[in-house]
Amino acid sequence: MSGVQVRAAIHVASVLAIYLALLMLIPVAIDLFYGNPDWKVFAFSAMLVGGAAMAVALATRGRPPPASPRFGFLLVNLLWLTVSLAGAVPLGLSSLDLSLTDAVFESVSGVTATGATIINGVDRAPPGLLMWRSLLSFMGGLGVIALGLFLLPFLNIGGVSYFKIESTDIQDRPFERLQTFLVSLIGIYTLLGFACTVCYVLGGMEPFHAVNHAMTTVATGGFSTHDTSFLRYVDKPFILWTGIVFMFIGGLPFSIMILIAVRGRPDALRDPQIRVYAGYVIAFSLAVAVYLRVNDNVPFLEALTQSTFNILSIITTSGFASEDYTLWGPFAVVVFFVATFMGGCSGSTTGGIKAYRFLILFELLVSGVRRLLYPNSVVPIRYGDRSIDPDMQRAVVLFMASFFVLWGIITVLLGAAGLDFVTALTGSLSSLTNVGPGLGPIIGPVGNFSSLPDSAKWICAVAMLLGRLEILAVLVIFTPVFWRG
Amino acid sequence: MSGVQVRAAIHVASVLAIYLALLMLIPVAIDLFYGNPDWKVFAFSAMLVGGAAMAVALATRGRPPPASPRFGFLLVNLLWLTVSLAGAVPLGLSSLDLSLTDAVFESVSGVTATGATIINGVDRAPPGLLMWRSLLSFMGGLGVIALGLFLLPFLNIGGVSYFKIESTDIQDRPFERLQTFLVSLIGIYTLLGFACTVCYVLGGMEPFHAVNHAMTTVATGGFSTHDTSFLRYVDKPFILWTGIVFMFIGGLPFSIMILIAVRGRPDALRDPQIRVYAGYVIAFSLAVAVYLRVNDNVPFLEALTQSTFNILSIITTSGFASEDYTLWGPFAVVVFFVATFMGGCSGSTTGGIKAYRFLILFELLVSGVRRLLYPNSVVPIRYGDRSIDPDMQRAVVLFMASFFVLWGIITVLLGAAGLDFVTALTGSLSSLTNVGPGLGPIIGPVGNFSSLPDSAKWICAVAMLLGRLEILAVLVIFTPVFWRG
Repeated sequence: MSGVQVRAAIHVASVLAIYLALLMLIPVAIDLFYGNPDWKVFAFSAMLVGGAAMAVALATRGRPPPASPRFGFLLVNLLWLTVSLAGAVPLGLSSLDLSLTDAVFESVSGVTATGATIINGVDRAPPGLLMWRSLLSFMGGLGVIALGLFLLPFLNIGGVSYFKIESTDIQDRPFERLQTFLVSLIGIYTLLGFACTVCYVLGGMEPFHAVNHAMTTVATGGFSTHDTSFLRYVDKPFILWTGIVFMFIGGLPFSIMILIAVRGRPDALRDPQIRVYAGYVIAFSLAVAVYLRVNDNVPFLEALTQSTFNILSIITTSGFASEDYTLWGPFAVVVFFVATFMGGCSGSTTGGIKAYRFLILFELLVSGVRRLLYPNSVVPIRYGDRSIDPDMQRAVVLFMASFFVLWGIITVLLGAAGLDFVTALTGSLSSLTNVGPGLGPIIGPVGNFSSLPDSAKWICAVAMLLGRLEILAVLVIFTPVFWRG
Repeated sequence: MSGVQVRAAIHVASVLAIYLALLMLIPVAIDLFYGNPDWKVFAFSAMLVGGAAMAVALATRGRPPPASPRFGFLLVNLLWLTVSLAGAVPLGLSSLDLSLTDAVFESVSGVTATGATIINGVDRAPPGLLMWRSLLSFMGGLGVIALGLFLLPFLNIGGVSYFKIESTDIQDRPFERLQTFLVSLIGIYTLLGFACTVCYVLGGMEPFHAVNHAMTTVATGGFSTHDTSFLRYVDKPFILWTGIVFMFIGGLPFSIMILIAVRGRPDALRDPQIRVYAGYVIAFSLAVAVYLRVNDNVPFLEALTQSTFNILSIITTSGFASEDYTLWGPFAVVVFFVATFMGGCSGSTTGGIKAYRFLILFELLVSGVRRLLYPNSVVPIRYGDRSIDPDMQRAVVLFMASFFVLWGIITVLLGAAGLDFVTALTGSLSSLTNVGPGLGPIIGPVGNFSSLPDSAKWICAVAMLLGRLEILAVLVIFTPVFWRG
């Protein structure tokens, strides 16, 4: 790690913070529109963050360093940390009187599109602040797609290298191409948010709530403008199915949407991870719907709507709830727990383990069992019609291993912070997978994180960042070898 | 799979069943000694099992098939299944009036050295039956060591191939050597059981209970002759420390004890897995002892005794309890949960993930993180002063992956059987790791499995067998390719 790299990374992060300060003008406008005095908080925060960022940006100008994995990792960590801290400034200064811990937790939860909240009384919060939470989540979702499509593949993290926009797509005039991709990504993402808003309004949601929920739906974030999440829309199937459709889309690989939009290549939809993702969404939703029908005697169509909305919300790591599904019976609770691991596709806004890793793991298992019988057989690991190289296999396995080890460590830390077993176990899991709600009376679907001790909030915030950056991209900067030379 | 292989496997299994029938004469003697009429049950069972086994053995005589992985897998599965079913016969016929499900569950729990029980009122059970449970556990422990030392390495399951008695040790006159090893294994194992019995008696345990507890201690099984396990010895530190010493030894690699005994090679103790195993035993025990001291104000020495006994009991997958440790506070509960995964060394009587897999996983993580920064670097994965080949790495990883996937599936099945979240989650885990007790009011350290629905008992029994045979050795026989040709 050289001084030039550190300087350059700080420079990029401070430029991002300037944009973030500009973004704070949206809540200013919202609060002014609704006549809420909290607009001053955002105006002040914008000046504070913008001013400081500008000073740092000026002080760190210079030639960019040559691209290297080291610089990439440093940059990714610094970007998420900067947005998390800068995003916390207006939250901490707002009329809600949040502590430093609470402000940072809420900001990290937004930026990582986790959606866990420490705010009691979201319904009474200033509209500008609600919009700010949604914006953090929306931007966080966009950021993680960009990360997954353009940066992580080149850092070979977690086995996503396979999913980079194929080199043939960018070989000719790479920068122009990358720009095209980035512009169409932002276009598609914004369009999805807009379409989702319109549908929510058509379903009967008030426009302000519709805009906010649409942003956190597309980002599979899960922040709601109500304390009780989607419980007040429980009898509005159109709203719930809107959520279902857009959460599902949020779990799809955006690279494919881009390829379809830019290149008109619908064959990209044949990506096997989409079938796996759709497969387990359908299987889990149907299983719980049938259980609701049989066990709780709910009419099947209603059961299917409630089941699909809530299961998909957990699978896509959104974290909305239209009912307290922990009351649906023991089988449902266990399925929701397992759903917390799943996630969507690579290059999506979802966290968790994700469909392609399950697919590759399954292939590894099949080949491993075969090799037990035929020790000398060579079974290539296939993903669709291509084969997966050993580096990619290793990356998938490394991710899984570090995921489970970290889950254990964070659970123990949360236990040491005084949380009961179920809260510690599911709180660490849902933070690490960026889902949001866990199980149990405290952080379950109708609860929130406000009553946790400060230490537990910090641990969860760190877990969210670890999960969002696919774990290894964070761990790597804590190794001595990273800072050497 | 050929007919010859199936016939030969059935033949070996039926010969084992004959030995098992002979073993039933021990409970006959015990019940006669104590004047309990249940001796007839065991006499009848011995004739029934022995007669049937003899008939099958005669009908399946013939030349042994050539050694092959296929035959090995078939044999291992058949042996454990045979002992489980034959062991259930006297349990089902006994005066306790157990159902078929309960008898099989109890037998599987014994044979796999899990130690979960469905008997309410163990204290009032016939002494012959108690002895039979202990014998199943003792033999199961011996069987799993033999499996781990002599069979699994050649089947390349779970990355234990590394730990086979090195080929240089058996190159000259392999069969003679193997016999020497087997005899010294049985000698050491029996000696340990005897020494443990003596110590328990010296500590104040009645001889009958001492013999039974010693057998299930050395086997790290966990069956107790009391409903409340070691709770009645909670204020007898000598008994608890006896348990600690012999459970710890049960978690050591028996290959090393054999090498020391046969070859006088104390340098074998330098095996790195022993340091890892001892390391986490000390770390977990100390952490909980300090917590008990600080949180519950227990004098430190007493806290250390209780903590070490119960933590080691879970780590070595025994499952004894000297107190209801779920009342020790949230941190303790979480540590006990994590301890359920751990296990001891390879070639021991313990289940779970085991120390050497954690060590190799850690090496893989370090090398993986290093490769993120230096993509072209080749970092050999080391185990002590030798390097681990890719096949072994793959085997470790496959075990971990199938372990976690199976844990999820079994948890969902237990949820479908109607168990609450904590019971389903920890019941599936403690069955799969052969620990025994889980968490929660039902199957916690002072509970038992009697009140579970039959479906849940069968699921747990299957999980115990899966865990005992290192998962893949069972899964492989459910693949179409296994039965082909």
